[in-house]
Amino acid sequence: METLQREGSLTQVEIAGVTGLSAASISTLVRELNDEGAVRLEPSIRNGRRATLVSLPGQRGMLAGIAIGDRDLRVAVVASPAGDVLERTRLPLPFQHEPDETLARAARLVADLHTEIGRPVSDLRAVGVAMQAPVDSVSGQVGSESVMPRWSGVMLTEALQALLRVPVQLDNDANMSALGELRAGVLAGVANGCYLRASHGVSAGLVIGGEVFSGVSGTAGEIGHVTLDENGAICACGNRGCLDTLVGSRALVESVRGSHGDLRFTDLVTLAGRGDVGCRRVLADAGMHLGVAVAGLINLLNPEVIVLGGDLLMAQEWVLGPMQDSIERRALPSAAASVELRPSALGADADLRGCFVAAAQISSFHEPDSAHRAT
Amino acid sequence: METLQREGSLTQVEIAGVTGLSAASISTLVRELNDEGAVRLEPSIRNGRRATLVSLPGQRGMLAGIAIGDRDLRVAVVASPAGDVLERTRLPLPFQHEPDETLARAARLVADLHTEIGRPVSDLRAVGVAMQAPVDSVSGQVGSESVMPRWSGVMLTEALQALLRVPVQLDNDANMSALGELRAGVLAGVANGCYLRASHGVSAGLVIGGEVFSGVSGTAGEIGHVTLDENGAICACGNRGCLDTLVGSRALVESVRGSHGDLRFTDLVTLAGRGDVGCRRVLADAGMHLGVAVAGLINLLNPEVIVLGGDLLMAQEWVLGPMQDSIERRALPSAAASVELRPSALGADADLRGCFVAAAQISSFHEPDSAHRAT
Repeated sequence: METLQREGSLTQVEIAGVTGLSAASISTLVRELNDEGAVRLEPSIRNGRRATLVSLPGQRGMLAGIAIGDRDLRVAVVASPAGDVLERTRLPLPFQHEPDETLARAARLVADLHTEIGRPVSDLRAVGVAMQAPVDSVSGQVGSESVMPRWSGVMLTEALQALLRVPVQLDNDANMSALGELRAGVLAGVANGCYLRASHGVSAGLVIGGEVFSGVSGTAGEIGHVTLDENGAICACGNRGCLDTLVGSRALVESVRGSHGDLRFTDLVTLAGRGDVGCRRVLADAGMHLGVAVAGLINLLNPEVIVLGGDLLMAQEWVLGPMQDSIERRALPSAAASVELRPSALGADADLRGCFVAAAQISSFHEPDSAHRAT
Repeated sequence: METLQREGSLTQVEIAGVTGLSAASISTLVRELNDEGAVRLEPSIRNGRRATLVSLPGQRGMLAGIAIGDRDLRVAVVASPAGDVLERTRLPLPFQHEPDETLARAARLVADLHTEIGRPVSDLRAVGVAMQAPVDSVSGQVGSESVMPRWSGVMLTEALQALLRVPVQLDNDANMSALGELRAGVLAGVANGCYLRASHGVSAGLVIGGEVFSGVSGTAGEIGHVTLDENGAICACGNRGCLDTLVGSRALVESVRGSHGDLRFTDLVTLAGRGDVGCRRVLADAGMHLGVAVAGLINLLNPEVIVLGGDLLMAQEWVLGPMQDSIERRALPSAAASVELRPSALGADADLRGCFVAAAQISSFHEPDSAHRAT
């Protein structure tokens, strides 16, 4: 029951996985509880197969995930953190978009998605927000003056709570992705690990002691702003020679401007795939620099698993090889031997999946058991 | 009682600190337990004042701490992890000393110290060992083939247990120092922090969730081998451009060899103190590089407190200023604003103090409560 309280709807197989009980005991338990009316059962599709979702009767309701990037906004709704996404949408955003407007849009999209699946927005219980910037998850503010500068000091949690009238949990995209992978991906059961996202920029979500580790003000894992070159290029964060200045998408397209003209990041990756040696070299160098920073993280944290996510790492053999070489050359041998690099199981959805988990956690926190039973 | 079981002898003030109970309740409790014979009281001096040590009657016995460096061996014995050091000694070691011989010497010194204070060595309950090299605290082996190469693969814990016939707990010096500062120094009550030691080399002991964090194979915190310069000098670990190659004592004396001739590290520091501008510059540059690596650690871990230990950091204003400048310029502002840099409270003894704490933990583990009661 506690498991359902925390996770919302689950299949019997998932309940067995989370609780460690046998499938047979779960089956008996669920049947008895259903006879008593203590749980409700609902047909569903999970991983392409028919399955029965088990939930607490009072706990029905929707959860939303919102991912705010510097160029786009993704919104999705689910009936439970473990459930399939019922409806989703993606909206491109203008460069340096206005926080107020973006939050209003996000709130409107959440309402629209409810309409599309035929549920009133009053069914919404909680929202998780993943932000592509350092975030103070304690105060609910965006935590850097320089990465997404217009968002600096915006009380995002408060503003969105006012718009949607439900609890909101904010974190940065890497932490949310780590939470997603921890609950239902490559980090499941891992005590000490890390989700590494390399895309337009680089960030990491740390898992320590089986939980996402945010640090004292919520900014732990900001590997993109670790200095790799003391005298390097100026970074948006105000420092010189950050990892982001060497492997961020802007740096990569800039480094082929002389030879290839104005390419977008995706063009560069496409050309590398078609055999363009210049573009392959740029990606290989990026992999090498990434490996230097990751070796530092391995020396500091000695993790079991590093999950690779983001466009640059998910499918790019040109990046991965040099990154692994670099790690082998630069991490302490015993630490390098102890770590496994694995591709993300949840892909680009890892952050939204983490949002659902975070939303479920605050929704059960804000609505105690007795309230559910009363409905 | 549990507290005493874990900590050995404590004063009433210390018991109040550890348990969170009021001084008045502790006083009443201790009086009642003493009347029943459940605890024993013993006069002592603590922080220069008279104090009564409270301990469990069966738990009397000695603990030893052994710190093995690449050039010296320090050994000390106490009657409890919180007690004052009863006797100590320091022995210089030859360059690349033989593990077998060093361990035999350490065991002999532990016995000698017992003789000096007039106790049989059979009173020894457990030993903590701090090693100046990466250590696999799980297997009890020294964990790097290249830092202190002769010790690579030595089953230190096993060997010392055979010599002293008591349980032995091994960790690297920075982790042991962090444990010492956590129990009785600057890290007391800190959830997320770090002990940073800069001396002949640099290492860090991480504290996460109020405990020393060792990583999956026990080598977490190896900041000395984080790459600062991809094309830099070769390091003993086999990598290029590690922090140690820039700020280790060997690198520092090397950088003034042309201008000042053959200096030892301590000469360099002395000359800087006397106003030698070349030596000051070397220390300032070391501080700057240290700051780059520490900023990376701050970005990754967002700690509350960093404790500064080791010769290079304890008293060196020439190092600290540039290090702090470097951190301010290179760490994310919100993470830099959240961290406090504080000098070590335990100084050069932090590692031995941690050894006593570790020894007490395994001694109570190996000797269950009932055994104590029976004596």
